Amino acid sequence: MQSAEAKFNKNSLLLALRRYSTAVCEMEQTVLLPSLLRDVPSDDLWDSEAAEDTCRDLYDNYLMFKAIRSKVESGLIPLDDHKAKNNGALNKKLEPLLDKDPEALFRFHLKGLFTVMTDLTKKTQSVTEKYIDIIGVSK
Amino acid sequence: MQSAEAKFNKNSLLLALRRYSTAVCEMEQTVLLPSLLRDVPSDDLWDSEAAEDTCRDLYDNYLMFKAIRSKVESGLIPLDDHKAKNNGALNKKLEPLLDKDPEALFRFHLKGLFTVMTDLTKKTQSVTEKYIDIIGVSK
Repeated sequence: MQSAEAKFNKNSLLLALRRYSTAVCEMEQTVLLPSLLRDVPSDDLWDSEAAEDTCRDLYDNYLMFKAIRSKVESGLIPLDDHKAKNNGALNKKLEPLLDKDPEALFRFHLKGLFTVMTDLTKKTQSVTEKYIDIIGVSK
Repeated sequence: MQSAEAKFNKNSLLLALRRYSTAVCEMEQTVLLPSLLRDVPSDDLWDSEAAEDTCRDLYDNYLMFKAIRSKVESGLIPLDDHKAKNNGALNKKLEPLLDKDPEALFRFHLKGLFTVMTDLTKKTQSVTEKYIDIIGVSK
């Protein structure tokens, strides 16, 4: 039997999780003074409507990416997830699928997790690049 | 940096994926004559409405669990997923979350994948137990 992490491929979930960890690690190693990211708008990191809604500056993004990385690396499932209340309606829609078509639900979450990790990796890399721009170091 | 699979825990996604692989492996090793599962209803494996909808017997379940295991072990993301058309509406609802609250979306898919794998593991173990019942071997 091959273990779940034995194979790696460009479109592998485990590789996407690893890529994210690496991007956050690089961000941490580059951003030596995170406070320089305070009050720097994150408009081009997120679409403008979302940026307005969340009012996040680059410093907030920096903290969020680190927090998500901890969860990725622990691999732990947030069973008592108080923040997930917004997903209640979505979960209700998905519950019948668990019995009717668990294979579709498996693919849905596998692909969903891959997509969100790929997106977060790009945004983490953007924060690193923006920090380099701010401190004026030529790449 | 700790790698994504360095830590294992009861509620870890990677452990849930491993547990599923092991359950399918045990099912394969036990079910030496899969054809004996043909026409055996899978009513108590799924809720009655779902079983009626899908008309699956235990043999269909046996094949499905093996097919999902292959995907779990390859870890590959089905990017050209023609079967996922039913999830189109769900994905449309989730897309705005990717920019507004990627952390919530990450938790949603992480927990979703964990739940579906835990459920599939139990159902795979049920097929193994039912086969043992059919051939009349005492455990």
